[in-house]
Amino acid sequence: MAGTNRKAKAKDKPTPGPVIILVEPQMAENVGHVARAMMNCGFAELRIVKPRFDWPSRKAVAVSSGADVILEKAKIFKTTEAAVKDLKRIYATTARWRNMSKPVMTSIDTVKEILKLKIKPQQVGLLFGKESKGLDNDDVAMCDGIISIPLNPTYSSLNLGQAVLLVAYEWLRATYIHPPRQLHLRDSGFASKDELLNFYGRLEEKLDACGFLRVKEKRPRMVRHIRNIFQKAELTTQEVNTLHGIITNINIKGAKGKR
Amino acid sequence: MAGTNRKAKAKDKPTPGPVIILVEPQMAENVGHVARAMMNCGFAELRIVKPRFDWPSRKAVAVSSGADVILEKAKIFKTTEAAVKDLKRIYATTARWRNMSKPVMTSIDTVKEILKLKIKPQQVGLLFGKESKGLDNDDVAMCDGIISIPLNPTYSSLNLGQAVLLVAYEWLRATYIHPPRQLHLRDSGFASKDELLNFYGRLEEKLDACGFLRVKEKRPRMVRHIRNIFQKAELTTQEVNTLHGIITNINIKGAKGKR
Repeated sequence: MAGTNRKAKAKDKPTPGPVIILVEPQMAENVGHVARAMMNCGFAELRIVKPRFDWPSRKAVAVSSGADVILEKAKIFKTTEAAVKDLKRIYATTARWRNMSKPVMTSIDTVKEILKLKIKPQQVGLLFGKESKGLDNDDVAMCDGIISIPLNPTYSSLNLGQAVLLVAYEWLRATYIHPPRQLHLRDSGFASKDELLNFYGRLEEKLDACGFLRVKEKRPRMVRHIRNIFQKAELTTQEVNTLHGIITNINIKGAKGKR
Repeated sequence: MAGTNRKAKAKDKPTPGPVIILVEPQMAENVGHVARAMMNCGFAELRIVKPRFDWPSRKAVAVSSGADVILEKAKIFKTTEAAVKDLKRIYATTARWRNMSKPVMTSIDTVKEILKLKIKPQQVGLLFGKESKGLDNDDVAMCDGIISIPLNPTYSSLNLGQAVLLVAYEWLRATYIHPPRQLHLRDSGFASKDELLNFYGRLEEKLDACGFLRVKEKRPRMVRHIRNIFQKAELTTQEVNTLHGIITNINIKGAKGKR
């Protein structure tokens, strides 16, 4: 169907994302859409707390168009507590402000946070509430954070399947399709601020000595300008040591010389 | 509903994205879902080529839950040519390989390309074909590029509303929610490679003169290492000039000195 790739092989499959937990979903069709969205994004594990319709559901299977493997393996729970108890981190998606002190993050930042935690995706749960009013406050209170899906602020209403699709897509996007820019630190880690400030100080001392910073009024701006050059280079400890070596070897002797 | 923000004001509204063009959609409900996805992502203009149902459609309005303003303003066309003739750039979403020489890009890269073109979003069209078989080859041939929505390669089937949602979301994400990392070039543009190589050459000359690069076997690696420090700094022309100034002022006199 629209804009999809049919030629792929199983070995290209993304590794499964977090557990999707639907709390008291009201319509079986929506669970079918959720299964499909999960499969689109390589998610495997679905848990349902007190579905408001018979389970297993033929309607859900009909809507899932091929993603019924997720429905077959879905586990049903009587309480949210039971559905999350083996997990290490859970996040609530909610539209309403809960008057609770709780971190609220976009789905983009939630994914980043989960990846930084260095726990298995299968130990993380993403909770979605019932279609009519979302999660109840007790469920939200149990969560480690609240996910906000960033959309047009004047019209951000999503149905359940679309909400799962957009959150799961962010996971796939960050882990599989489009991993974030990374700096490879081949030799050593990033230089500490202390190491950098020490280098800047030593460089400026030499530049004072050779007269490059002789115009007093310009000195602060020049210093900032030069520090920024090195700041942008995201220096490692080894690179700072190299730069120290250069400064040491260059013999400063008063100013002058033309380019 | 799930994970959305209801407190926003109209002034926070994103500026409209490209034109969405549905070619021969078969089900009115799907057009309702498309309107909703468009509104979620701040898109405003919908064009429909030969809908296979009566238009205007009550069913579409019912499904659109509040996004019916997009349906009211939608324009109907008899041919794809007529629907695209005022546009400057059009992209096809398609799943099937068309045996056509045509750039295929992810939705992520398509958005980047459109933003680089520096034409108005309203001069760009995104084409979605009929639910059963997508766009026909004549329509694809007219397009400037093919959009592939990056998903789980072993299950990437999307319905029309979801396909529009994911492409429109990428637009919103890149332009409104999460603009890409940008380097502010306050003073001058990026230095040319020529300016950089010239600076590197001059620096290495000085480092040869002062003896820093005296160990012959290590020289090539040291040179690469030092060049990379400055390479990472994404230097502007003005910054390269500052660095030249530093080199000029430092008076090289044989090696030595300890840190």
